[in-house]
Formats: sequence, C-alpha cells, structure tokens
Amino acid sequence: MLFGALEAGGTKMVCAIGDEYGQVLEQTSITTTTPDETMPKIFEFFDGKEIEAMGVACFGPVDVRKGSATYGNILNTPKIAWRDFPIVQNIKDNLGKDLPVGFDTDVNGSLLGEVTWGAAKGLTDAVYFTIGTGIGMGAISGGKLVHGMLHPEIGHIKMSILDGDNFKGVCPNHGTCFEGMASGPAIEARYGKSAKELENNNDVWNLEAGYIAQAVTAVIFTLSPQKIILGGGVMHQKQLFPLIRNKVLEDINGYIDTKELRNISSYIVPAALNDNQGIMGALKLAALEIA
Amino acid sequence: MLFGALEAGGTKMVCAIGDEYGQVLEQTSITTTTPDETMPKIFEFFDGKEIEAMGVACFGPVDVRKGSATYGNILNTPKIAWRDFPIVQNIKDNLGKDLPVGFDTDVNGSLLGEVTWGAAKGLTDAVYFTIGTGIGMGAISGGKLVHGMLHPEIGHIKMSILDGDNFKGVCPNHGTCFEGMASGPAIEARYGKSAKELENNNDVWNLEAGYIAQAVTAVIFTLSPQKIILGGGVMHQKQLFPLIRNKVLEDINGYIDTKELRNISSYIVPAALNDNQGIMGALKLAALEIA
Repeated sequence: MLFGALEAGGTKMVCAIGDEYGQVLEQTSITTTTPDETMPKIFEFFDGKEIEAMGVACFGPVDVRKGSATYGNILNTPKIAWRDFPIVQNIKDNLGKDLPVGFDTDVNGSLLGEVTWGAAKGLTDAVYFTIGTGIGMGAISGGKLVHGMLHPEIGHIKMSILDGDNFKGVCPNHGTCFEGMASGPAIEARYGKSAKELENNNDVWNLEAGYIAQAVTAVIFTLSPQKIILGGGVMHQKQLFPLIRNKVLEDINGYIDTKELRNISSYIVPAALNDNQGIMGALKLAALEIA
Repeated sequence: MLFGALEAGGTKMVCAIGDEYGQVLEQTSITTTTPDETMPKIFEFFDGKEIEAMGVACFGPVDVRKGSATYGNILNTPKIAWRDFPIVQNIKDNLGKDLPVGFDTDVNGSLLGEVTWGAAKGLTDAVYFTIGTGIGMGAISGGKLVHGMLHPEIGHIKMSILDGDNFKGVCPNHGTCFEGMASGPAIEARYGKSAKELENNNDVWNLEAGYIAQAVTAVIFTLSPQKIILGGGVMHQKQLFPLIRNKVLEDINGYIDTKELRNISSYIVPAALNDNQGIMGALKLAALEIA
C-alpha cells in the first residue's frame, strides 16, 4: 500500500512516498516560505502518485483535536504567513477531498516513528524531545499520542536557575524557560558562538545538561515514560548524553527506583532512525488514518 | 451490582460497599497502623458481603503495571510497615482468590471518581492534584489513567524559587521541590503555624499560590489536560483558587491560547464530589475490572 508523508517544518518541507513498513521509496525537500509559494510545490511532488492516505507531521502550535472547528489548522505560530493556515483542508482541496489525512505535531510524528520502528518500539509510554532551534516534545501515554487541551509545549516550562548562571534567556514570552535557556539560539546568545564552535568546552555542556536534565526529570514526574528519546540539533553533541543521565539521577536523588532508572543508559537515548523518524512517523500517521 | 471499595490512605482506610452508579450503601473508616493489625479489620467489614469485584485506590508508591512481577504491591514507601506489602494478593487470599480486584493510586482513584461523576465528567484528559500532608497527582490521557514506568510523582518536580523566599523546604530527598515548598507540613515549618491559623494572612497564600501555579503550568505544558482539579487539605483554603488561576495565566504569559484558558475559572477547579471522589473512584476501579 502506498502512502504520502509530509514532515512540515518551519525551514523545510520533507515530502515522501512510502509504505506501511516505514520504507521511503521517494523523497524530496522543499524550502518553507509562504503557503502560496510552498504548498503548490508540495502538490506538484504528490501529483499523480497513487496514495491511499496522507500523513502530516507539522510544526506547531496546531489543532490536533478531531471534531474541533479548527482541526487541521496551524494556530498562532510566530511564522506569520502560516498563522491560522488550514493545512489539512488545503491538502484535501488539492489532492482529493476524499483522501484520508492523518495529522499531528512534528514531535508526535517523530515519536510515532520511534515507537513503531525505533528506540521505543512496542512501548505504550514514551516521549521524544527535540532540542534545537526550538524545543518541543511528543508524548505517548497508554498507547495514545498525547493531545488534550492543545498538545505538550515542554519548551516553556519554568527552569530553576542553576548556580552562578546570570543569563537572562532568549524566550520572548518567558525569558528563562527551558527553550529560553537551553535551545540552540540560547547557546549562541549566551556565548556568542555556535554549539559547533563550543564542542570542546566542558562548562558549556555541563550547564546545558543541567537544564535538559531538569526538564527530563519534570517529565518523569508527570508522564512517567518508559523511554526518553532526545533528538534535535543540540543533541548532535553526543557528550551530552552521559552528563544528562547523571544529572537526572542526581535530581531524582533516589526518590523513585525502577528498573528503567537502574539502566539509565538504555532509558535516556538518542533517536534510532537516523533523522528519518519524522518522515517515517508521518507514514505511520497515514496508515493509522485508514486502520 | 454490588462492589467493594477500599481507599487505602496512610492515616485511615475507608471501606465501602456500593454500586456501578457510584452510590455508597455502607461505609466505615479504620485507622491505618500495620498490615497485621489493619488488614483483618478491613476483611471483617467485607466478610459475607456479596460483592462482584473490589476496587483499591492506594497510597503510593505502588506497582500498577499489570503483568509486572510486583503488580499490586506497595513499593518503597516511608511507612516502613507497608513497604513491599502485596495488598492486592492479601485481599485475594482473604476475600477469595477469584475476586476481581482493580488497583490504582489514591490520586488516580480520586481522578477517576471526578471523571466519571464529578468536575471532569466525560473528559479524556484531566488531572487531579492532592495538596495536603503530601502532594500527588492522578492523570488521565486519551481516556486512560496514566501509569507508564511507575506513575506521576508531581510533588517532586523542582521549583524555581520565588523572589525573596529563603525557605529551604522540607523534602528529605529534594529540599525545595513542590512538596518541600508547598505541602501542609511545608507551610507549618515555614511559619511555625498551621494553615488554619494563617487563613487571613494574604502573603502566605500569595506565595503558596505561586508555587502551586508553577506546578500546574508545568502540567499544562506536559500533559495538556482539559481540566485541572485541585484537592487535598491545603485546598480547603478557597482563597487560593483565584490566586492560582491568575498566576497560571501570568506564567503562561499568552504563549498558548485555548478556550479552556480563556475560561480559567472553569478550568482550574475544586473537586465536585465532596471528598467522596476517592471512594467513588475505587467503586469505578472495581466496575472497570469486570467491564
């Protein structure tokens, strides 16, 4: 069975044709500018392809609540051209009004890829963080992707400022929230250098791991996942993983004891699908839509 | 149909007989001491009652993962006499090995009561906080009670210390975590007076609301509930509700905009079942066990 997949990001749109096994048969990448310019290029890629359903994993905030009047729309994003854009409806209008379209956040898409074929395969409770230009989190609880009132926005939880840190944060809404303190732009603003240039500076990564661990621990104490996957550009700094694992154990300080925490190197892990988790998750969103 | 219900708390055990509509027909309360002393009194209450199933909502930590080797056990609680006590097995050994026994945390029990008959009736995504001697949270996501690796432990998330506050917290593991800063014992340790005696001191409740709002906001950014119910002894101070609502909106600072947040007085609410949410939830746990 052939499915269409769209990983809709703020900088690029990845389009693919694939199957129910997550195999990508054809793929292209389109620069994200405005809906008027970008969407026709997407439709050109899918034109004439015999797909049974489409899956869209989209940058947020988005309305993922089926039955809502604005279901399938991008909401109040800072990317003004895309604000209130009805992306699901636009796809149906152009690729066929009866085409089933699965729709979720980009991070739920990546998580779904990892739960179906990757690092969290077969688990019912897991989370996927992306820590890069922005910070987001997808979550699955009891086998269902977490939506609720809107969807998680882990980037905006308040941080307890670490000792000796005077940085004021880069989040326009919250200053020193998780994204304000630990995103890629926060690292660059704090040190005046890119993450790449700071690679060998241990102090940088110790501090970064401290904030990431704080958010990971907050998620352990709320969603209680069986696996925590950390992805995104900042996590390409692999030296962060052991630092984060140690600090999470320090933060929990023995309060809970589980087999997962006793094997923390297989509990807090990188994505396993080589940056294909998003597009593979979008294929799964398509498959689920007609399941 | 008749069900047995046990709300197992650290200070008392509430036992009841009721039906699938949450109606309690007979109820008693037994002081919690040790399993050897307390459990026989519980069995005496249920002896000869024609119940179809039993529901147990228990103080934690507990193993609620069906299929786990220690399912139905109380885990490493500070109440030493109850540590590793196999409460579900003990009930089956005494009331009948074929008796279906539903089992969950006390806070998931209260939440289930409120989701079935109370403030969150019919919702798929909601949370119930108890803020009293300890702080805990039950959660439902996509219509399923949240378990995962263990269960939520919201009392232990790290707090960002509020301006001018020098209190060191009362949590033996984390000092200034949510429970360390905002539980009943934290209030008493901070001011040397009980919550009741401090009722008219606005500064006390402003600070308390600040910490509670911080935890509520963290939950909004992780679980994204459609309703937040605040219960427990500290929340008997009703003046906290408007303070918490205002501070949650301040903490979110316009970053997300939903109809729930626009109607925050019906979003962050007290329990609706007059302190019967726990025992009614335990009845529902029994009903679900044979559903």
